[in-house]
Amino acid sequence: MDKPLDKIMNDTTRDINKFLSHHMDQYSLGNGQFGILYEVSKEEGISQEVIAQRRNVGKSAVAKSIKRLIENGYLYREKDEIDRRAWRLYCTDKGKNMIPIIINLIEIVKKLLTNGSSEEEIKIFRKVIERMSQNIEEYFEGIEG
Amino acid sequence: MDKPLDKIMNDTTRDINKFLSHHMDQYSLGNGQFGILYEVSKEEGISQEVIAQRRNVGKSAVAKSIKRLIENGYLYREKDEIDRRAWRLYCTDKGKNMIPIIINLIEIVKKLLTNGSSEEEIKIFRKVIERMSQNIEEYFEGIEG
Repeated sequence: MDKPLDKIMNDTTRDINKFLSHHMDQYSLGNGQFGILYEVSKEEGISQEVIAQRRNVGKSAVAKSIKRLIENGYLYREKDEIDRRAWRLYCTDKGKNMIPIIINLIEIVKKLLTNGSSEEEIKIFRKVIERMSQNIEEYFEGIEG
Repeated sequence: MDKPLDKIMNDTTRDINKFLSHHMDQYSLGNGQFGILYEVSKEEGISQEVIAQRRNVGKSAVAKSIKRLIENGYLYREKDEIDRRAWRLYCTDKGKNMIPIIINLIEIVKKLLTNGSSEEEIKIFRKVIERMSQNIEEYFEGIEG
């Protein structure tokens, strides 16, 4: 019998995260954290709220990751000059030095995930997984609505 | 720009697990636990080691889940008559009563993950995700070997 789809997705996602941890743990950068660091490097001064939106992650999870990134000296934050309740995030030099390493890692991951598959197959893969997400989302909307 | 594949896989897997938790938390059955319970129901007397192998999960993670399943009254264990170091696992009545609920849930998940996609698309999806796993595995073999 075929392995259930949810099981195979769980396993593969775990493998990917294991791969990322393997490379990032040495820098005290947990999963999610280097993604946020990369996000800030692309848009210095970005706010925590925008990052949470873009990465589709809960606010408290993002807040926790950012706290770690600041503690470990990768990011610093400054109060917004106009909206004094908002914080703007910036990369430190240590943070900036990580960016080429992160970009390289993103490239390796991309290759590991696409090697051996045609562009057409990856396109179908994306379409199927997006449908999955949408179906689950609609399910939750249905029971909440 | 397209969302990175690892990100979309992480998000969708998280959604699936959120869905499963939503249905299973009321029974104090965490992710992974009801899969193990289902495995035992299909083969009463199965050992912890075989479950870990079949589910491709670390031994300590499986041991932890089984401990919870026993504490919550879903499983019980007995010493193997021949190999006295090995334990055999069995479903309690409470465990057996969960099986139709679990089978129903597995069916719903399957529908949520395949609705809107053709059989051919799902086949390609499986092929691509299996290649991903294999690529990552080979990567780790390469750096360990």
